[in-house]
Amino acid sequence: MEFTAQQISDLINGKVEGNPEVTISYVSKIEEGKPGTISFLSNPLYTHYIYNTKASIVLINNDVELEKAVKPTLIRVENAYSAFAEILEAYNQIKLNKSGISPSAFIDPEARIGENVYIGEFAVISKNAVIENNAKIYPQVFLGENVRIGTNTTLFAGVKIYSDNIVGGDCIIHSGAVIGSDGFGFAPLKNGSYKKIAQIGNVVIEDFVEIGANTTIDRATMGSTFIRKGVRLDNLIQIAHNVDLGENTVISAQTGISGSTKIGKNCLIGGQVGIINQLTIADEVKIAAQSGVGKNITKKGEIVQGSPAFNFISYKKSYVHFRNFHAIKSKIDELEKMIKSNG
Amino acid sequence: MEFTAQQISDLINGKVEGNPEVTISYVSKIEEGKPGTISFLSNPLYTHYIYNTKASIVLINNDVELEKAVKPTLIRVENAYSAFAEILEAYNQIKLNKSGISPSAFIDPEARIGENVYIGEFAVISKNAVIENNAKIYPQVFLGENVRIGTNTTLFAGVKIYSDNIVGGDCIIHSGAVIGSDGFGFAPLKNGSYKKIAQIGNVVIEDFVEIGANTTIDRATMGSTFIRKGVRLDNLIQIAHNVDLGENTVISAQTGISGSTKIGKNCLIGGQVGIINQLTIADEVKIAAQSGVGKNITKKGEIVQGSPAFNFISYKKSYVHFRNFHAIKSKIDELEKMIKSNG
Amino acid sequence: MEFTAQQISDLINGKVEGNPEVTISYVSKIEEGKPGTISFLSNPLYTHYIYNTKASIVLINNDVELEKAVKPTLIRVENAYSAFAEILEAYNQIKLNKSGISPSAFIDPEARIGENVYIGEFAVISKNAVIENNAKIYPQVFLGENVRIGTNTTLFAGVKIYSDNIVGGDCIIHSGAVIGSDGFGFAPLKNGSYKKIAQIGNVVIEDFVEIGANTTIDRATMGSTFIRKGVRLDNLIQIAHNVDLGENTVISAQTGISGSTKIGKNCLIGGQVGIINQLTIADEVKIAAQSGVGKNITKKGEIVQGSPAFNFISYKKSYVHFRNFHAIKSKIDELEKMIKSNG
Repeated sequence: MEFTAQQISDLINGKVEGNPEVTISYVSKIEEGKPGTISFLSNPLYTHYIYNTKASIVLINNDVELEKAVKPTLIRVENAYSAFAEILEAYNQIKLNKSGISPSAFIDPEARIGENVYIGEFAVISKNAVIENNAKIYPQVFLGENVRIGTNTTLFAGVKIYSDNIVGGDCIIHSGAVIGSDGFGFAPLKNGSYKKIAQIGNVVIEDFVEIGANTTIDRATMGSTFIRKGVRLDNLIQIAHNVDLGENTVISAQTGISGSTKIGKNCLIGGQVGIINQLTIADEVKIAAQSGVGKNITKKGEIVQGSPAFNFISYKKSYVHFRNFHAIKSKIDELEKMIKSNG
Repeated sequence: MEFTAQQISDLINGKVEGNPEVTISYVSKIEEGKPGTISFLSNPLYTHYIYNTKASIVLINNDVELEKAVKPTLIRVENAYSAFAEILEAYNQIKLNKSGISPSAFIDPEARIGENVYIGEFAVISKNAVIENNAKIYPQVFLGENVRIGTNTTLFAGVKIYSDNIVGGDCIIHSGAVIGSDGFGFAPLKNGSYKKIAQIGNVVIEDFVEIGANTTIDRATMGSTFIRKGVRLDNLIQIAHNVDLGENTVISAQTGISGSTKIGKNCLIGGQVGIINQLTIADEVKIAAQSGVGKNITKKGEIVQGSPAFNFISYKKSYVHFRNFHAIKSKIDELEKMIKSNG
Repeated sequence: MEFTAQQISDLINGKVEGNPEVTISYVSKIEEGKPGTISFLSNPLYTHYIYNTKASIVLINNDVELEKAVKPTLIRVENAYSAFAEILEAYNQIKLNKSGISPSAFIDPEARIGENVYIGEFAVISKNAVIENNAKIYPQVFLGENVRIGTNTTLFAGVKIYSDNIVGGDCIIHSGAVIGSDGFGFAPLKNGSYKKIAQIGNVVIEDFVEIGANTTIDRATMGSTFIRKGVRLDNLIQIAHNVDLGENTVISAQTGISGSTKIGKNCLIGGQVGIINQLTIADEVKIAAQSGVGKNITKKGEIVQGSPAFNFISYKKSYVHFRNFHAIKSKIDELEKMIKSNG
């Protein structure tokens, strides 16, 4: 897609300096700018790049004074950085704005499809599934019976949602994510084998949630696994049965939350963290990457690290000594000798 | 689906007290009971809930004596908890009891399909694949050439099984699991690059195995990777080439087992554990979450923790001191001063 | 498939001793040899097995002198081990040599398909996608708009590649891998929620790369995430936005690399490693399994371990003391008593 400087300027309420007919189709960093791209200047330390950049258009703050003429067309705005972010988003919305229902998708006659919905090739929409207006279901997605997908939600290629699970509006679920697989529940039998416990609950994903590629969220044994409004999950995360993730909590890749654990609101959980089952974690807690949480965290805003995890400042102090442990041990041996020779 | 109290009572050999025509379609916990749901009372501490619950039906032990009248229809049984589990299972079996072969599935003319098999939309069954009676192959599953799927086995939507791999009877494999991808084997070349070693073995999954969503099991370089009878694997687990997992071993999410390692029977392995290649782990070993196992475990029933892992009691003792390391170091410094002033 | 001893001998320039018409269809280890299989003898310690093996054909070095007659047909070669590897590879190439385009695949009229390409059932090839000669696209693969797949590259069943991503030649991508999902980027808002930052970059995978099952590689926020020539990624790995992985670097399963980190050439990274964002790791660095890397590694060939990671020899020394921490603490207590009684 090509856009002129004038079109872009109109979008962000800017003012064009230079040729308004110049066109771009990609974006670039100002220090790597190429013809046909748009860039932006926000950091004052990068100002010198504007005299040499090959970008065709540069967004620039109203208050920047230039010392000499520049080649690119400039678009003056109040805040070049946020204007650039606006442009990226508009670009992405155009690019991802798909609609229409592929004739090769399978849609059960008893499914209910809203208006302006996109359904891609070889998607499967089972009986009694409901897809609200403007949702985008990419190719090869599977929606089991009674699944509901909210307004404006996007499911990328190959997402699998088992029967009875519910996804809110304005959500994004990335390829390979699995929603509503069975919780991991088994009762030990006397002969050493295990009997599967039927998993008949579901998963409820509220509005404005994003779920990364190949992340798995198990259905509840009974009741629901909850992913609350605004939660952001990275790739390859495991959420076990009956977990409850609080609003706006953000979790990095490859972290695992065990069964029935309840996480508060606005928590920040690093990558490769493990949290055991049946715990309660307070609001605004931060957990460092690779930590293992083995007990409740009751203090709002607590920051923990380690496996098992404890207060992160204490952890860092302990770890400094761990790194020097060989020297510390030598010192102890030396003290022992001194004492014995004194004694 | 709706069921009457009488129908449920007949299923579990109970005795109805109250209206036998009352119907339910969902289950609930007694403390959260809603009209149209069935619940159970097993824990004596919860007995008071029965006087207020809105559940339409409650399972209750024969020997519980009530102090006043209750609203729900009761079903009296010997053991309310296990009767409830029976009902869940029966419910699930009805719900998951699919059959029929979708006209949009691709089935190679040289594949062999048993009786009463379900094959969903856009599944691919390649040449010489064999699917035994009562197996359920959900939409978008891929079975490569010569794959065999045993009786009563369920493969949920999007499972991918490469050619030549074998799955036993009564198994469940969840969405996104990949069975039989190439082992990770490369021979270093003089120029710093690597040459792929052909991976021509397969994976053999025995009967009564459950495999979680997005778990990956690599084929053997030569011979077979074995998942023995009754093994239970959670989500996002990595099983490398030529691993042999013993009967009834249970592994939690995000654990990885490296190439050619042999795990005993009835082991319990926590989440996010790593086990290096070529090891042998004895029967009934327990490995704490996030541990890293770097050498053989020869003692049956051993319990280990840490990275690298050692005996879990020793680990816990060491970790207590690690947490207090700052105080311990201060003590050492103090002792040093005392000695020097004494000296 | 069946092959005669003579056919195999011709393939590897060997010399047949015994019946050249004997046929095999599988391979075996010499100690487990079965009729109808080919095996090899390379390790002198295994020489005695050749007198009892039931393998039908055995590859053997020219210089091995046998003490008595053997049952299998022998094929004499300079190096039995590498000849065997050659046979495995030839076998695999025959087995995996698929071609033809399934009528049930969806191919956009504006996609460009090279010669001798295989496209399996229910694959989706979107607008302006380009597939070069001899590429193999297995069933249920998804290629978004403008994706390019190089010559001889294989994508196994169910690989998902978002729009605009580029895969080089001679690559292998295993089932369930997701290429080009959105980077995990959010700007915090005043009300505690987050605003998604549009992710409009792509992923560039160079030639001779192998990517494991269910591995995820996020697209760049802007610019490209780079997977350089010869990189080998195992299963369930997470590569975040704007990462740059150097040539011939090898990474084991379940490792995660955070955003914008640049890894050098010929590095060896163990399983379940985490590396934080914005770092630079030198060439030929080795990182032990389960390590957490929290700062730049500038020394070529450095070997690190731990979480946070430091020099692996220092780590091992510290860990020995950690294991003995209880005894060390007792010693400190004892010294304290001695000092106080001396004092």
